[in-house]
Formats: sequence, structure tokens, C-alpha cells
Amino acid sequence: MREEAWVESLRRRFPFSRGLGIGDDAAVLAPDSRRESLVLTTDMLVEGVHFRKGDLTPAQLALKSLAVNLSDLAAMGARPLFYTLALALPADYMGLCLEEFYDGLEQGNRRWGVELAGGDLSAGSILTISITAVGEAARPVLRSGSRVGDLLAVCGRLGWSKLGLHDLLNGQRKGPFAEAHISVEPLLAQGQTLGPLASAMMDLSDGLLKDLGRLCSASGLDAEIDAAALPLDRVLSDRCRTLGWSPLETVLVGGEDYALLFTAGVQEMAKIKTLVLEPDISVIGRMVPGGGQVRVFENGRERVVEVECYDHFAVHGAGD
Amino acid sequence: MREEAWVESLRRRFPFSRGLGIGDDAAVLAPDSRRESLVLTTDMLVEGVHFRKGDLTPAQLALKSLAVNLSDLAAMGARPLFYTLALALPADYMGLCLEEFYDGLEQGNRRWGVELAGGDLSAGSILTISITAVGEAARPVLRSGSRVGDLLAVCGRLGWSKLGLHDLLNGQRKGPFAEAHISVEPLLAQGQTLGPLASAMMDLSDGLLKDLGRLCSASGLDAEIDAAALPLDRVLSDRCRTLGWSPLETVLVGGEDYALLFTAGVQEMAKIKTLVLEPDISVIGRMVPGGGQVRVFENGRERVVEVECYDHFAVHGAGD
Repeated sequence: MREEAWVESLRRRFPFSRGLGIGDDAAVLAPDSRRESLVLTTDMLVEGVHFRKGDLTPAQLALKSLAVNLSDLAAMGARPLFYTLALALPADYMGLCLEEFYDGLEQGNRRWGVELAGGDLSAGSILTISITAVGEAARPVLRSGSRVGDLLAVCGRLGWSKLGLHDLLNGQRKGPFAEAHISVEPLLAQGQTLGPLASAMMDLSDGLLKDLGRLCSASGLDAEIDAAALPLDRVLSDRCRTLGWSPLETVLVGGEDYALLFTAGVQEMAKIKTLVLEPDISVIGRMVPGGGQVRVFENGRERVVEVECYDHFAVHGAGD
Repeated sequence: MREEAWVESLRRRFPFSRGLGIGDDAAVLAPDSRRESLVLTTDMLVEGVHFRKGDLTPAQLALKSLAVNLSDLAAMGARPLFYTLALALPADYMGLCLEEFYDGLEQGNRRWGVELAGGDLSAGSILTISITAVGEAARPVLRSGSRVGDLLAVCGRLGWSKLGLHDLLNGQRKGPFAEAHISVEPLLAQGQTLGPLASAMMDLSDGLLKDLGRLCSASGLDAEIDAAALPLDRVLSDRCRTLGWSPLETVLVGGEDYALLFTAGVQEMAKIKTLVLEPDISVIGRMVPGGGQVRVFENGRERVVEVECYDHFAVHGAGD
């Protein structure tokens, strides 16, 4: 079963009466007497699937594990509050590595204004990090709120992390691309600024085309991307050409970008561009009537891009 | 570093400003405008450490994973609300096994009145289940509230799960002991009834002596156990003798009992016994001045019991 169909079947099977359950970047606990909704997300990182132990220091791994969860909260327009952590640790990760891992968490807590609420520690032959993060938002931004005529935009860089993963797999742990893959910065302030203005939002973890397809399905619309508007700078283009990769397809397919993808009305988008100055906001297309398709146009012609989707399952084989 | 010292160091390192963080059965998010506190707990079950895949059906594994988390909420006197689930799945667990796992979750949701709020699914060579459960309580019961003179009691059976683990490791998956190990029933109604009356409470996962030591440390008291008062029925005693085990030590050391251990004043305990009829409540001792020690008395003499603590790390070797 494809992932989308499987998630949809789970959504029907496990209805959530207290707010929004399965199917968005995070679950939403509707406010009762609180002013704001609580927003919850969980992400697990598994050695050999999402990372190779040698590619990241323990502190970097802690920061990335926390960042990918906070990125989901950012995509809801939420302020992060706290998180729980469950760890399965191989024997060689006990002791010094674990201390360094906690150092990384402390750094992340300070940088992103969150707290560790509790956790569970277990032995395990495969290093596994499972975080559940909780935030709050006055109006969480869902994937489903996009309207016909809304502009489509990205806040952040695309393709860099994919190039970085390539570098890491080839033993190259230095440089801006590996850095982009290792050091994820959740766009928390940006997400909160976008929150009241965006009609739909999500973070990009599986690549622009794949994730945009999900936003389109959730909103019941198609999206049209203008290839010329995609964020494609010289550094990335040069690196792609060295590898014989298409820069355009690298940006479209990407993966682990942790940029924010969002839609907004024309007026709201103009306001957003005055409020969010960094990282760059690229208006890359528009939402049109349809049923979940994404089309890419280059020089006025549709370009068919194979969604060689970013799939953790395939990127690293088991035991990598 | 011993687990207690390590948890204490983490507690100091990661202060939680929004309520109670690391160190109890669950974290507590102090109420803001809500009437009740939110209570959060996380527990991860790792194949080869906490279970062997062949010993439990997928549905049983789902139910147990959920139950051990809900047991932590019961131990806070909390009503469970919902949970998130992160799964790392080996290839042989995809498909039918995963469907059966979700069947088990659905059963658990109905039985215990909880909902799945969201989750994350990943590949992974080791089956790993990480659940974060959220509940609410007007007055969460901590481990630290015990007072000198309080009576010490257990609600539920002790030692059965340890015998069941022994049976499973010897290929015996039937019978009341294996059943006690596989099918955990979180004492939710009992925990909520005890909540307003108990001075301290926790659930028993690592064995009575070890867990009671934690309650004593948290409360800054010693505990005295009257061996004759421990719940030791005929079925358990007979089975222990067959194996050449001491029934008393089996009950004291146990592990994965998921009974509730609590303390209460004399009057409160009398009331509790009229309110909680099932499973049995056994008053097993009392709290005395001290600094975290547990002493067991048999026929008026102190009996020294080696805390061969229930240690998941040792029970199953990696790769079991």
C-alpha cells in the first residue's frame, strides 16, 4: 500500500475526537478552557535508516532529532513548549556518547526555547531516538486550508540536504551541503509569523514534489509550479552539474529540506514577504482546481519529473 | 552509574519549568487555565530487550505496549486521554503483522478509553514501539508525598509476571503466568480511585524492592515490609516450589507486575479498602523515618533479600 493510502486508512480507523489526529504534520488538541490549542508531533530516528552513527557526533544527532520534531511544530505555526525522549542505546553509545548526546539536547533546549519533560532509556542493538514534542498555537495551520488562487511559496533552501547526504555517503563530512544535512534549523519564528497569514503549511521532509502532493490532496486542489521561480542558486547549480545531476530535479525531489511549504492569498503573501526576511521566501507557483496533482511548468511547457521520492527506507539499506 | 543516580543527574540537568519533569512515573504539566494537570509518560519497547517477537502476537504486543504506558498514568491517578505512537518495523512485520498490531491498538483504545492522536512509521531491523501517553488528573499522585506513619500497600498481583517470563523463555506460552506476563491490565479505575486518598503512588515495573526503594528515596523515608502480609497465594507458591524458587523472594523481586504501590494514612487506607475491591489490596508495611532504605521483616526478624533487580538489559540478551 502506498504511504498516502495507508495514512488515510489509519486516519479513518483511528478517529480523534479531541481535535485533529493522524494526517497532518502534528496532532492538534482542541482548546477546552485554554486559549490555545496544544499541538503534538512524534518522530523517530533509527540508526541505519535515518542516519549512520559515524556521520554525526552524538551532540549533532541529538540536535537533529530534536530539530526535525520542532520543524513539524513550526509547520503548524506553533510555539514549541517541551518534549519527551525515548532512547534505545547500544552498549558503545552508553557513557561518553550519551553525555555528549545530552549536551546536544541542552544546546537545543537553549537555542529553541524548549524543555525536556521526561523520557525512557533502554538498551538496544540499534541506536533509536524517539521524540514527542508539544507546542501551542492560537490557530494551527493545517495542510488542508489552501484555496484556489492562493500563491504557493517555500521558506528556506531546497536540495542542499540531498547533496549533503550524497557527500556523507561518500565519506565527505565537511562543506555546506553536509552541514545542511546534519544541522537542521527548524524555522520556528518563521512558522509563527506565517501562522496567522498562511492558508496551508507543512514542512518539507520527503522532497518538494512528494510533500506538495500531500498538501494538494489534503486541500483537494492541484498545484502548478513555475520552474523558473524555484530557489536555485549558483552554489547548488554548480555542485549539481559536477555530479551530473539536474539542478531543477534536485530541488524538486530533494528530501530532508526542513523548509516550510505554504500557501497564502495574494495580499497575505505580500505581507508575509515584508515580515519574513530570512531565509528567503520564494513564491514558486499557485493553487488551481483539481484533485491532488502537482504540475511543473518550464518555459511555458509542462515538464514531467519522476518523483524519485526521498525514501529513508531506500537511502540507507539496513545495516549501513 | 546506577540508574537512580543517573536519573537524578538528568533531573538536575534538565529542569522543567512548566510542572514536574524527569523522575516520577510521568511528567506533569501544571494547569494554566485548565482545571486539571496534563500528565505525560513515554515508554519504548525494544525487540530482544523487552520482548521476543515470537512470544507475543502482534495484537498482544500492541496491547502490552499501550498498557505499560497507561499503567504509568494510572500510577499518577490520571485519566488517560490519548497517545502518540512511533514504530520501527522490520520487513517481516509489515503487512499482515502491522494490521494485527493495529487491531490490538483498536482493542486497547476501546477497552481503556483512549485514542491514537498520531504517529510515525519507520523501517528498522529491530521492532521498536515507542508510545507517549497523555492523561489528566486534578491532583497527580507523586512518589514523593509519603509521610511517616503512612501504611504501605499494593493493589494487584506480584511475581506472576516473573514466573510467566520464565515460562516464555522455556517455550511455554500458555498458562496463567505467561498470561500475566503477556496481557498487562493497567489499573486505571483503581489509580483514579486511589488518587485523592493516596499520599504517594507508583506502578511496579522493576520489582517491588527496587521500585519501593525509589518511592522511599523520593519521599525521604524508609519502608518496613511485613513479609507475612505480602500477597502470596497457593498457586504462586506451588509453582515457585516446583522451580526451587523462594515464593517470598519471587514476590519481592518480581518485575513487570504493573501493580500499584502506594502509601496512605490509616484512615485513608480504611476508606480505600471499601472503595477498591478488585484486585486485592494488600497492606504490606509502613513508612518510617529514614533515607530511602527498604527493610523486610519475617517473624519479627529482618530478612536480607538481595535485590537481584528486574533488569530488562539482562533478562534477554541482545539478539534473543
